[in-house]
Formats: sequence, structure tokens, C-alpha cells
Amino acid sequence: MGKILMGPTTLICPMPVLLVGANVDGKPNFMAVAWGGIANGEPPMISVAIRYSRYTHRGIGQNLTFSVNVPSVDLVREADYCGITSGSKVNKVEVCHFNVFYGKLDNAPLIEQCPVNLECKVMHILDLASHSLIVGRIEETHISESCLTDGKPDIDKIKPFAYIGTPVPDHRYQSLGEVIAKAFSIGQELNVRE
Amino acid sequence: MGKILMGPTTLICPMPVLLVGANVDGKPNFMAVAWGGIANGEPPMISVAIRYSRYTHRGIGQNLTFSVNVPSVDLVREADYCGITSGSKVNKVEVCHFNVFYGKLDNAPLIEQCPVNLECKVMHILDLASHSLIVGRIEETHISESCLTDGKPDIDKIKPFAYIGTPVPDHRYQSLGEVIAKAFSIGQELNVRE
Repeated sequence: MGKILMGPTTLICPMPVLLVGANVDGKPNFMAVAWGGIANGEPPMISVAIRYSRYTHRGIGQNLTFSVNVPSVDLVREADYCGITSGSKVNKVEVCHFNVFYGKLDNAPLIEQCPVNLECKVMHILDLASHSLIVGRIEETHISESCLTDGKPDIDKIKPFAYIGTPVPDHRYQSLGEVIAKAFSIGQELNVRE
Repeated sequence: MGKILMGPTTLICPMPVLLVGANVDGKPNFMAVAWGGIANGEPPMISVAIRYSRYTHRGIGQNLTFSVNVPSVDLVREADYCGITSGSKVNKVEVCHFNVFYGKLDNAPLIEQCPVNLECKVMHILDLASHSLIVGRIEETHISESCLTDGKPDIDKIKPFAYIGTPVPDHRYQSLGEVIAKAFSIGQELNVRE
């Protein structure tokens, strides 16, 4: 199988679509972030990479708190809007009709319409080159009652979507597809070879 | 819409499935990592969260290099195997029949069968609580020739899959599904409201 070199790229896939929230000058704002992931298990922490110039970056610096909201497929328009506009120019909460609420942290704004909401307290800000990698401890998780089955989060009700950053066919959003295997299970089939 | 509190959790979705490679005591080993994401844009950097006790953690510490390999759906069995076994006990390269090669870094092992391979040089190791958040600068990208269209990476040929960490219906792997929208585009429909 031949390989082609492409130089340094950010080519991993899939990536999540997360709406990161912060109060900026006292008002809630949200931006779309695909560059984020869980950073620690016990206690749960998350990291998000945010360009210095972003309006949300300012708000996180002001309060040292932020939120991470997972949108479902029916919010793809709003999520994309939060990625292509700046809170310095538009009121995204108003344009997107987000119902904003707060949890145990005073200034980490949460979006009611998103099925999953995490409240985060900043633990580290790692200043890289173009972006800050902001690590937050997850203080609380809110989940929409309608996305639970037997009291537990149900992925088929949350209906998240992924951001695809490859140039072909296009930068796009995709829902989840076929279930291909049970995790921590299918790999056992290879154990016979040990 | 009612919300339920679940305490601190790592509930984001979807997550990527990445095979992180390192030479440990001079031999290539790979582990499955869902807790990773892009950390910086210019230059490209990536972060992966790895538990201290993991065999791969030792190898990354030894060489200060690692690789990130994106498996396609046909490697789901091997990827899961790399997540449920330890290189201290089994030779994963042998069991999984991985063809290992090296690029510009001497000791960041790459998997030929994975369509995308990133070579990374460690820039920061952020010691959190249970995990280290390891930030690497992406030095080179290798992509399988068969996954290109007009010389560019084509997601429909790469065929990556996601890890779903919600307990219901089950922890599982899912392929990508329906294309729901073009990124940096559909959000413009809301601009009429500005």
C-alpha cells in the first residue's frame, strides 16, 4: 500500500462538534469547537483548543469557567453559525434562539436545547502557538431527560454529529451511522492468536 | 425540557478512535485512544490523554516521540484489541499483523494498514490526575494513496469510525452516517436574522 507525504496537518477524524460557552463582559456567548477531547479520567477533565483572537477566549480568561454543550443533529445550523460568526459582532444567543441557563458555576452559560451540557472550571491554560489549550475540570453534567433510557444517557436519543475536516468531498457534518462493533469486546476475537 | 444532573462525567460524543504508537524498550507498541484531539493549528499539534500506568506511556517518555494512526472500519477488531490488551503482556504488532514502518522520526512507529498516520514530537507533558495530557507537534502526515481523490484526502475512502462512550445501548463503535450539512456554510442561513 503506497503512502503519500502531506507535511504537518491536523488530519484526524472524526472530530466532535462542541459548543463552548463563556460569559464575555457578563453576557453569554458560544463558539463551535471541533478541537477538543477528554483530558483526564479521575476526576473528569476536558481540553479545548481556542485561538487567542476569539471572543470566547476573552470570556474564559475573565471568569476561568466555561461550558461544553453537545448539539444534536437538529442544531447543525446553529452550531455552524456559532463557528462562522464572532460574538464581538452578533448576539449568537439571540440569533440561535438559545435558552441559556446556569448550573452550579455562576458564569458558565449552558444551552437548554443541547442534550448534554458540561460545566467546567479552568485548571490549566497551555499557551501553544496559534491556540491556547484550555483544560477544565468538569464540575457537573446536565442531560436532557428526554435523552435518557432507564436513567442512563442514550446515544440514539442524544443524536450528536461529527465534523469532518478532510477537503474531499467537502468540509462537512455527518451523523453517526452503522453500529460496527461492541467496544471492549470484539477485540477478544483476536485473543485466540496469543 | 427537563434536565437531570449526573455529576462530573466524560460524556462528550462522538470521539475518534486513534491508535497511538510508541517504541517501548525499542519495540513498537500501539494503544487505542479515544481521548485525543487537535491542540494547535499553526503549527499543527495534537493532544492525547494517557493513563500513567500504560505501557505506551513509558515508551513516549523514553523517546519523546509518538505516532497517531487513524484506523478504518475494517480494522475495528484490531483497534479494539489494542485497547483491551497491554503491550507488557502481548505483542500487539504480531497479533494484529500490523506492517510497521518509520518516517522522518526514528522511533515513532506507523501502521501501514491505517489510512492516516501522524508522526509527533512531544512538546508538553501535562501531568493531570489519573492521566498525562501529552501534546505533540505533528511533524509529518502519511496517507494511503488509495484514500486520495485528486491528490487530496477523501473521507469516504478513509472510512474512519467513532467511539461512543455512553452506556446505553452499549459502549460501541459506529461508522459515519448521513451527510447532514456542509460546514462553514449552512449557518449562513441564519444571517438573515442579524
